[in-house]
Amino acid sequence: MQPEKGEKGKSFKQRLALKSSLMKEILAEFLGTFIMIVLGCGSVAQAILSRGVFGGIVTINIGFAMAVVMAIYVTAGISGGHINPAVSFAMCLFGRMKWFKFPFYVGSQFLGAFVGAATLFGIYYDGIMSFAGGKLLITGENATAHIFATYPAPYLSLVNAFADQVLATTFLLIVVFAIFDSRNVGVPQSLQPIVIGLLIVVIASSLGLNSGCAMNPARDLSPRLFTALAGWGFEVFTAGNNFWWIPVVGPLVGAAIGGFIYVLLIEIHHPDPEPEFKAEQSEDKPEKYELSVIM
Amino acid sequence: MQPEKGEKGKSFKQRLALKSSLMKEILAEFLGTFIMIVLGCGSVAQAILSRGVFGGIVTINIGFAMAVVMAIYVTAGISGGHINPAVSFAMCLFGRMKWFKFPFYVGSQFLGAFVGAATLFGIYYDGIMSFAGGKLLITGENATAHIFATYPAPYLSLVNAFADQVLATTFLLIVVFAIFDSRNVGVPQSLQPIVIGLLIVVIASSLGLNSGCAMNPARDLSPRLFTALAGWGFEVFTAGNNFWWIPVVGPLVGAAIGGFIYVLLIEIHHPDPEPEFKAEQSEDKPEKYELSVIM
Amino acid sequence: MQPEKGEKGKSFKQRLALKSSLMKEILAEFLGTFIMIVLGCGSVAQAILSRGVFGGIVTINIGFAMAVVMAIYVTAGISGGHINPAVSFAMCLFGRMKWFKFPFYVGSQFLGAFVGAATLFGIYYDGIMSFAGGKLLITGENATAHIFATYPAPYLSLVNAFADQVLATTFLLIVVFAIFDSRNVGVPQSLQPIVIGLLIVVIASSLGLNSGCAMNPARDLSPRLFTALAGWGFEVFTAGNNFWWIPVVGPLVGAAIGGFIYVLLIEIHHPDPEPEFKAEQSEDKPEKYELSVIM
Amino acid sequence: MQPEKGEKGKSFKQRLALKSSLMKEILAEFLGTFIMIVLGCGSVAQAILSRGVFGGIVTINIGFAMAVVMAIYVTAGISGGHINPAVSFAMCLFGRMKWFKFPFYVGSQFLGAFVGAATLFGIYYDGIMSFAGGKLLITGENATAHIFATYPAPYLSLVNAFADQVLATTFLLIVVFAIFDSRNVGVPQSLQPIVIGLLIVVIASSLGLNSGCAMNPARDLSPRLFTALAGWGFEVFTAGNNFWWIPVVGPLVGAAIGGFIYVLLIEIHHPDPEPEFKAEQSEDKPEKYELSVIM
Repeated sequence: MQPEKGEKGKSFKQRLALKSSLMKEILAEFLGTFIMIVLGCGSVAQAILSRGVFGGIVTINIGFAMAVVMAIYVTAGISGGHINPAVSFAMCLFGRMKWFKFPFYVGSQFLGAFVGAATLFGIYYDGIMSFAGGKLLITGENATAHIFATYPAPYLSLVNAFADQVLATTFLLIVVFAIFDSRNVGVPQSLQPIVIGLLIVVIASSLGLNSGCAMNPARDLSPRLFTALAGWGFEVFTAGNNFWWIPVVGPLVGAAIGGFIYVLLIEIHHPDPEPEFKAEQSEDKPEKYELSVIM
Repeated sequence: MQPEKGEKGKSFKQRLALKSSLMKEILAEFLGTFIMIVLGCGSVAQAILSRGVFGGIVTINIGFAMAVVMAIYVTAGISGGHINPAVSFAMCLFGRMKWFKFPFYVGSQFLGAFVGAATLFGIYYDGIMSFAGGKLLITGENATAHIFATYPAPYLSLVNAFADQVLATTFLLIVVFAIFDSRNVGVPQSLQPIVIGLLIVVIASSLGLNSGCAMNPARDLSPRLFTALAGWGFEVFTAGNNFWWIPVVGPLVGAAIGGFIYVLLIEIHHPDPEPEFKAEQSEDKPEKYELSVIM
Repeated sequence: MQPEKGEKGKSFKQRLALKSSLMKEILAEFLGTFIMIVLGCGSVAQAILSRGVFGGIVTINIGFAMAVVMAIYVTAGISGGHINPAVSFAMCLFGRMKWFKFPFYVGSQFLGAFVGAATLFGIYYDGIMSFAGGKLLITGENATAHIFATYPAPYLSLVNAFADQVLATTFLLIVVFAIFDSRNVGVPQSLQPIVIGLLIVVIASSLGLNSGCAMNPARDLSPRLFTALAGWGFEVFTAGNNFWWIPVVGPLVGAAIGGFIYVLLIEIHHPDPEPEFKAEQSEDKPEKYELSVIM
Repeated sequence: MQPEKGEKGKSFKQRLALKSSLMKEILAEFLGTFIMIVLGCGSVAQAILSRGVFGGIVTINIGFAMAVVMAIYVTAGISGGHINPAVSFAMCLFGRMKWFKFPFYVGSQFLGAFVGAATLFGIYYDGIMSFAGGKLLITGENATAHIFATYPAPYLSLVNAFADQVLATTFLLIVVFAIFDSRNVGVPQSLQPIVIGLLIVVIASSLGLNSGCAMNPARDLSPRLFTALAGWGFEVFTAGNNFWWIPVVGPLVGAAIGGFIYVLLIEIHHPDPEPEFKAEQSEDKPEKYELSVIM
C-alpha cells in the first residue's frame, strides 16, 4: 500500500477503484441498507427470541434507530445515506436527486435489505430453530416472522393502516428536510445521522403501535420476501388482510406529503436563492454531489 | 425548479413565498406545535393503548422529549422554536421578542396543538375505539383522556399542583435561558435542540409524578378542548378539582420566575454589554431576527 | 432595558451586576447544585413515590445524569460547573483553582444542595405524606429517606463502602480530567456537559449497587441533614453503621486519586508546555478564569 | 507546579515525563481497557447482583457502551483508543499502525482488562459473596461468572457461535472505519467516541443474544482468566463446549473482514489520494501519530 503511482499495490487499488459515481452510490446504498436490516431487525430478533429477557420496546426502538444512524454514517458521504426508497423518492421529487438514479438506488436498497435478512436469519439460525421447536410461525406467541417484516395490530383496519404508514413517513420527511435545510438550524453533517436516529426513536415510540412503523418499502418488503422463501411461507403476504403492500405504498405517499409540507410551510419562504439550484446545474461534480445537494 | 428569474417555476415559488416575517413565524410555530403534539402525545398513546407492552415511562419521557427536539429543529431557524406560550411569554418579558408578536405566536401554538390532537386521534382511532369497547373514558384503568391532556395524581392538592407547574417551568426556563446565553457555555445552535430535549427528559423523570409535567398551556389546553369535543365530554375540564387551568397559568408564572432567576443570578453579571440590546434596536432585520436575539 | 448608559434600566442593571468574580462563582455554584438536587433527587423521588410505575433504574440513572448536565450548562461559563466539593478539591489540588476559593465553592454547594432538598420536599410534600400514611421512614418498603441521601446495601461492610466511594469518584475524576485536557481528544466546551452526563450514567449503572454512588459530599450530606431536620430524625446519620461520613470523605480521597492517576499516566507525558501554567500566573483575568484554566 | 525550567516541580515533572511515544501508548491502552472493564463489566455486575432490580438489559447495554466511550475519551488522544486487540489488529492489517507496536498494544490491553476484573471483584466483593452464600458459581440462577466473561446461550452450536463473534466484530469495524474516514461523513474527533458508543449500544441490542457480544479478546479472556484464578475454577474455560477461544479468535477474523468490506466497498473508491499514505512515510512524528493516521 505505497502511494507512488505505477507500483503494484497502488495499481491494484487503482484498478479496483470505481470511476463511476453512480456505481459507488449503488455499493453504498447496498451496504447501508444491509447494515440497517441486520442491526435493526436484529434488535427485534433479540427481544423476541429472548421472550423479553434481553430486549424490549426500549432496546428495539433505540436499536433500530441506531442501526439507521450507523448505516447513514457509513454511506452519507458517498450516496447521501438514503437507505430507504421513500427517501430517495422524495429526493427525486423535490429536485435533490436525478430521477435516472432512482431505480438504481431502490434496487440496491431492496437487494441490501434481502441480503441483510438472510444474514440475520443465518446468525440467529440456532435461536430461531430452538424458539418454536423448529417451526417458523407467522402468528401466535411463538411467531418469529415479525422479526423481519411488520404486521398490523389486530384492531387495525386497512384504511387506518394505510393512513398510519403515510403519516409516519410524512413526519420522517418533514424533519429530514428540516435537518438538511442549511437555512434553517443548520445541523452539521456529522451530527445529522444522530438527529435522524433520535427522530426514528420518537416515531417508533409514538406511531409504532398500529403496525410497527416500517416507513420504508425496502426495510419491509425484502425481508418479507426472504421469510416467504426461507420457510415461513407465502402467508407472510396474505397475513393481516394482505397487509404487505401498505408499508410499500404508504411510505412513498407519505414521503411526498412530508416533503411538500416542509417546502410549502418553511423552505419556500427563505429569502435567499437556494444554493441547491446552482449545484443542480453543474452536473460533472465529484462523487459527493447528491450529498452536497441534500445537505 | 430553475433558478433564473422570470421562469414559471420560480415565479410560482415567488408568488407563494411569504414576504412577512411574522407570517412565516406563525406557520413555523403552528407546524412545530403540531409535530410536538402528534409525536409527544403519541408516545403517551402508544404506552397506554398497548397497556405498557409497547411503551412505558422510558419511551414516554424520551419520546416526548425528542418530539420537542424535532419540533425545534423544524422551526428554530424561522421562529425561534418556542412551541410553548410560556416560552414566548418569557421571551417577550425579557426583551427577546416584541410583545406585538405574542398573540400571534400563542394563537398558532394553540391551533397547532389542536390540529395535532385531532390528527393523533385519527391515526389511533381504531386503537382508541377498541381499547375500552368504544367508550371514551376520563378515569379508571380504561381511561384514554390522559393521552391528550394531563391530570393530577390522586394525592395532589390544588396548591401543590399549582406550585408543581410553576416550579417545573421555572427549571425549564432557567436552563433554556442558559443554553441561549452565548456568554455562558455557548451551545451551538445545532446542538441546542438536543440539550433542550435532554432537559425535558430529566424534568419529566423528576417532576412528572404530580401531574404529568405539562409546562405548556398550548400542549395541555388545546388537546383537552379537543377531547371535550371529540367525545370524552366536558368533564375533562372539571376532573381533578377543575385542574385544567393549572397547566395554563402555572407555566406562565414559572416561565417568568425562571427567566428572572437566570438573569438575576447569572446573566446580569456578565461583564460585556449584551449583544441582544443592539439587535433590539435595528428592527428591519431578516426573518431570523428572533432567533439571533434569543440565541 | 435600554442599552444607553445613564438610563434608569441600565443603571439599575449596573447597580445589581456583581464586580467580584468570586461572588458570581458562588451564586453559580449555589444555583447549579440546587438544580442538580431538585432534578436529580427528584428522579429518585418519582421512582420511589410511584413504587416503580413512573420511574425505575433507567429513569433514575438518566435523570440524575441529565440533572448534572443541566446544572453544568447553567454554571460552567461562570464557575466551571463543579457542583461537587470533590471536584473543587481536585481542581485546587492540581493547580486548576486557587485554594482560597475552595471554602466559598464548597459552602455554596452545600447551601445549594440543602435548599434543593427543601424545595424537592416541598414540591413532593403531598406525595411523600400520602406514601406512608404521613410517616417519614428511613428503612422498610415505605422508606423515603433515600430519596434525598444514599444508604448502603445490607451486605456492605464499612471497608467495602469506603472503597466504593473512593473508586467511583476516582473514575469520575479520571474522565473529567481527560475531558478537560485540550491535548487529549479536545472535547469542545459545549459538548463537555453531555460527556460528563454520559459518564454519570455509566458510573451509576455499574458502581451504583453498593451504596447509590453519591460521589459528592454536598449532594449527600446536605439533603441528609435536611431530612434529619424535616422529620425523618437523626437516625439518618446513624443508619447503615453511621454510613453518613463515607460519601463525604470517600469522594475527596477518590478525587485526589483520580486526578493523580490521570496526570501521572496521561497528562504529564504531553510534549508541549501546558497552557494552564500561563493562566495561573496572570491573576487579573475576567470571570471566565477558572473555566479557561480547567477547560 | 510553576512553568519555569530548572525549578524543582517542573524538573520532577520533566523526569517523570516519558519521551517514548510507545511507552505512553502502552500506559494509555492499559488505563483505557481497565476503565472499560470496571465500568462495563460493572454494569453487568449491578444487574446480576441486584437480580434485575437495579439493572437490566438497558442499563447493561448503555452502561457497557458508555464505558467504552469513556475509555476512548481518556485514551484516544494518546494511543488512538483501541482498547481491543481486534481493533489494533485491523489497524495494523490496513496500514493504520506499525506491526511492531501490535504486541505492546495487545499486552497492555490484556493486562488492563485483568487488573480491571480484579478491581471489580474487589469493589463488589461483599456483594458477590452474599449473592450465592459465598459460592462462586458458573451456571444456574446464582451464577456470577458471566459478570466477567461471556458464555453462549444454551441453544448455540459452536459453528453459529463462531460466526456470531465474526459477524458482530465485522459490523464493529465497518462502522469504526467509516467514522475514522475523513472523506466520508467526517465525524470530528471529539464526537467519534460517542458515535462508537451508540454503535456498541445497537450491536449489543441486536447481536448480543447468542453469546453476549464480546467482540474483544482482551475484554473476554483476561476477566475469564481472573475468574479461574479467583475461585470460580478452570471450568470457566471448559464451559459451553470450550467456548472460551471463540471470543478470542472470532473478533480477529471479524475485524479483518470488517475492515476489508469497508475498504473494498467504500474507501478504495474515494477520488483523492489518501492522506494516510503520507503519514505512513514520515515516521518521526509526534505521539499523536497513530491517531492522526486513524482519524
